Amino acid sequence: MRSLWSLLNPQIKVLDCTVRDGGLINDHYFSYEFVSAIYRACVDSCVDYLELGYKNSDKLFSPDANGAWKFCKEDDIRRIVGDNPTDLKLACMIDATKSDWKTAVVPKSRSALDMIRVAFYAHQVDEAIAMIEDSYEKGYEVSANLMAVTSISETEIDAVLDRLVKSPAAVYVIVDSFGSLTPQQTKYLTEKYMLRAKEAGKEVGAHFHNNMQLAFSNTLAAAELGATRLDASFGGLGRGAGNCPLELLLDVVNPNRYKLRHVFETLESEILPLQKEIEWGPYPQFIMTGQFNTHPRSAIAARKSLETRDRYAQFFDKLDGEASEVKSK
Amino acid sequence: MRSLWSLLNPQIKVLDCTVRDGGLINDHYFSYEFVSAIYRACVDSCVDYLELGYKNSDKLFSPDANGAWKFCKEDDIRRIVGDNPTDLKLACMIDATKSDWKTAVVPKSRSALDMIRVAFYAHQVDEAIAMIEDSYEKGYEVSANLMAVTSISETEIDAVLDRLVKSPAAVYVIVDSFGSLTPQQTKYLTEKYMLRAKEAGKEVGAHFHNNMQLAFSNTLAAAELGATRLDASFGGLGRGAGNCPLELLLDVVNPNRYKLRHVFETLESEILPLQKEIEWGPYPQFIMTGQFNTHPRSAIAARKSLETRDRYAQFFDKLDGEASEVKSK
Repeated sequence: MRSLWSLLNPQIKVLDCTVRDGGLINDHYFSYEFVSAIYRACVDSCVDYLELGYKNSDKLFSPDANGAWKFCKEDDIRRIVGDNPTDLKLACMIDATKSDWKTAVVPKSRSALDMIRVAFYAHQVDEAIAMIEDSYEKGYEVSANLMAVTSISETEIDAVLDRLVKSPAAVYVIVDSFGSLTPQQTKYLTEKYMLRAKEAGKEVGAHFHNNMQLAFSNTLAAAELGATRLDASFGGLGRGAGNCPLELLLDVVNPNRYKLRHVFETLESEILPLQKEIEWGPYPQFIMTGQFNTHPRSAIAARKSLETRDRYAQFFDKLDGEASEVKSK
Repeated sequence: MRSLWSLLNPQIKVLDCTVRDGGLINDHYFSYEFVSAIYRACVDSCVDYLELGYKNSDKLFSPDANGAWKFCKEDDIRRIVGDNPTDLKLACMIDATKSDWKTAVVPKSRSALDMIRVAFYAHQVDEAIAMIEDSYEKGYEVSANLMAVTSISETEIDAVLDRLVKSPAAVYVIVDSFGSLTPQQTKYLTEKYMLRAKEAGKEVGAHFHNNMQLAFSNTLAAAELGATRLDASFGGLGRGAGNCPLELLLDVVNPNRYKLRHVFETLESEILPLQKEIEWGPYPQFIMTGQFNTHPRSAIAARKSLETRDRYAQFFDKLDGEASEVKSK
């Protein structure tokens, strides 16, 4: 039955965000071997882009308390990819207010990177536009990732898109940081993003979290309406409930172009051992923060303590109480 | 954002299949306490139907090797529900060729059950129609569950629907036994089922498996196109990859009518302990049988043996080899 899906746009590109989003769980402490294996697996399975981490400030974040992939220094990248003599494109993320982007992002001629992804909240749009322009002028393909899209109003989304269409960002990514969107809502948002992207000759991307086990189907819903830049990760590795699993997405986007066997091989050799060290996935607390449309940090905290980890009803009461408080204000 | 979903049909009824589908993992050996807790949780959370198990043949299946919920004798049901003085309706499944339905299904006046669900493969449609008529004449609401819908052609589906519209079955359930459908394919099938159901004044139901983490979103996709009888289970408990999780479905169908807290409470008290004894969920082998559109039995076997359980690439090669063989025949 998969052949029906050949109706998806053949221009779709898939970006693996395993190391970048997964790094939010373990303060970016991935071993050289792990990152090399993910790089190799992306090349072998014909994934289009690999995002290696953040280029965030080593003044704001201590290099003693964070792994290399919080900073993505050029030397660290080169140790993994050399001159990257492959078709795989490489990306890094820079966070508004958290990156010394003016200096951290070097001219493309001196970098192994192909793309810079600018992550920002709606109220940070001024800095985001400056970041986008700076990275573009330095020679990179640039993506604009407006985070936590379910936490702001449609008017605010429209205002950000108004700014983006005048910027040199090549991709506008729908980012459901809280994992709160249903496929129906995703389609509605994708139409909105597509309308603005088309008028500017740009593309729409999709980055969904798996709180309600909808990351994969939301990604498909966005793709059906024209999104051509899709994020996923090995085993869905990513903060909280995790991301859209690469092993699910590649098969539906194009089971001929992408080589699934290498993905399952990597799940076996890299992801399964990691599951014994760190936790991610649609556990009940993450379901609930998705349903209540709030940041997953309270769920992460609840699951970290042995006292609260298995107390689902108590966590429900907490979120339900907070939601009632907001309503009665 | 959940309010958008109030567009779903208010006539939707949710059926909990935890004990019935979950019983396929542990040969229906659920304790009295567990089944009572699920019954109580369904009543408290305002679920509409509870399916308790199969009424299958105790001549074909030994009562020494199977728990009570393989047979659902009236006395066993009464021990849980008494006279069921609640709004919760009760259902059992009978399997074509595996049930002595002529005697096992007693007249409704002597039963605590409200509904009989007839499960059958396309080639068993003659017996299925006889089973549907028998249960209907005995006074039950009857559901027709054509299994493994992705393993047959559209012509075969149409032929079965042609027979069903002339039967007294009140509900035609789309059953994706292999967990192979994408939401796009689900919508296509739902339209087909709805067309025939409407002309007969009947309803369409949805029973999806979670191999590709799509059970929930396929259920929503079916509901969007008019399906009003939706299956789900606590924690997604069910054979192989499991079913659509009740805790996800109820919140989107109607967060006011259904009482989510009781569901999370039950996940904590009943499902979490069970996860230490039996396994279900979208593990890599189940993803692959879904992608290759085959029965999950090979995945269940691979995960049961410690030697093969973590060998994902080897399992991929096995399915890939079998698929190539079929193609070259």
